[in-house]
Amino acid sequence: MRRAVILLSGGMDSATTLALALREGFETHALSVRYGQKNSLELERAPLIARILGSASHRFASVELAVPGASALTDARIPVPKELPDAPPRSGIPLTYVPARNTVLLSMALSYAEALGAQDLFVGINAVDFSGYPDCRPAFLEAFETLANVATRAGVEGSLFRIHAPLLNMTKAEIVRAAVALGVDLGSTLSCYDPDPGGHPCGACDACRIRARGFRDAGIPDPGLKSGNV
Amino acid sequence: MRRAVILLSGGMDSATTLALALREGFETHALSVRYGQKNSLELERAPLIARILGSASHRFASVELAVPGASALTDARIPVPKELPDAPPRSGIPLTYVPARNTVLLSMALSYAEALGAQDLFVGINAVDFSGYPDCRPAFLEAFETLANVATRAGVEGSLFRIHAPLLNMTKAEIVRAAVALGVDLGSTLSCYDPDPGGHPCGACDACRIRARGFRDAGIPDPGLKSGNV
Repeated sequence: MRRAVILLSGGMDSATTLALALREGFETHALSVRYGQKNSLELERAPLIARILGSASHRFASVELAVPGASALTDARIPVPKELPDAPPRSGIPLTYVPARNTVLLSMALSYAEALGAQDLFVGINAVDFSGYPDCRPAFLEAFETLANVATRAGVEGSLFRIHAPLLNMTKAEIVRAAVALGVDLGSTLSCYDPDPGGHPCGACDACRIRARGFRDAGIPDPGLKSGNV
Repeated sequence: MRRAVILLSGGMDSATTLALALREGFETHALSVRYGQKNSLELERAPLIARILGSASHRFASVELAVPGASALTDARIPVPKELPDAPPRSGIPLTYVPARNTVLLSMALSYAEALGAQDLFVGINAVDFSGYPDCRPAFLEAFETLANVATRAGVEGSLFRIHAPLLNMTKAEIVRAAVALGVDLGSTLSCYDPDPGGHPCGACDACRIRARGFRDAGIPDPGLKSGNV
């Protein structure tokens, strides 16, 4: 049984990615990274999601990234931007972009995979309904896969790492439908950048708005809203 | 004055790299990463080295990488391999290789640089007298630079990151001579993978043996040995 490492944030996309990796027959090892995010409620959902879906293991790892002023996701003085639900998308890179975050997260996943003897990494990056982040683009994933194969034993010994991003070209509505078809309990996932202390979503950040549109377009009610979890 | 981020381990190579960045006129911001290495004595030299050389700043950052069994540098149960001084080099990737370490370190430096508004990263990687690590090869640095320029704002906004590895093609003897010419206090650097608690080098690990050969080939006595620091 081939091993794979999955970056699991506790959100809808990475939970669906884990379910897809399991359906492909991988022995999955989920990794949730604390990088100084103000909101760690999402991450706290990860161990339960991993267990329910049947991941062989789950672990947390920490990295110190937070530099004052770098991002609305890491600096308490920078509020997470909020919009009305149907406001048009803003252009440019949003304040919630964390410098080189996905590069650091994938690097940590690569190190973990190499140590475990896994050659497959799964990540829930999505390039359709994303927020304008540079590190959610297909070119980013291609460059990382190239790097992974020169940076590691694989590059010397001839075996190859594969970076899997099965949601890359899916719309949010397609992700919702796939998750439901795979039996992912979306009610246990949390996508909001700025939930209240009880884990209730703000409904107005980019993550909430993109999620709400996905469920609406899929014609499926968000079970997280019903349970009060999202 | 252009800003640059420098990975500073407290060893001879990164200290020399910092001196070279300063000579090129950069405002330098040194970053020393704790990644679970058993020996942190080398890293403890970094703040002093940064201050003496005139770096604008120095900071530590931590990342959790250490997986049991992954490397002799991180697992207390795996002894650092020792050899007689003139033993021929071993082939293959040594036990001291830490999975994807340089990828993680450069990613953290990239995040820090982007947050600081720096577009230049300096790293003391050397491809001549290295230890057979996959992530010390020119192809690794090229792949990382390509990645950096799609992973960040730079990739979207058209400015470019540059990864500088000024020691890449130098022999250890050339590095020793460059360091002396630049006024680097090599006596304050520590290269040993397995020093005793007082900071005295073992003399028999790869790092000690490569350093000793460099000084010998350069015809210069190692001031670290004289001061008991190395």
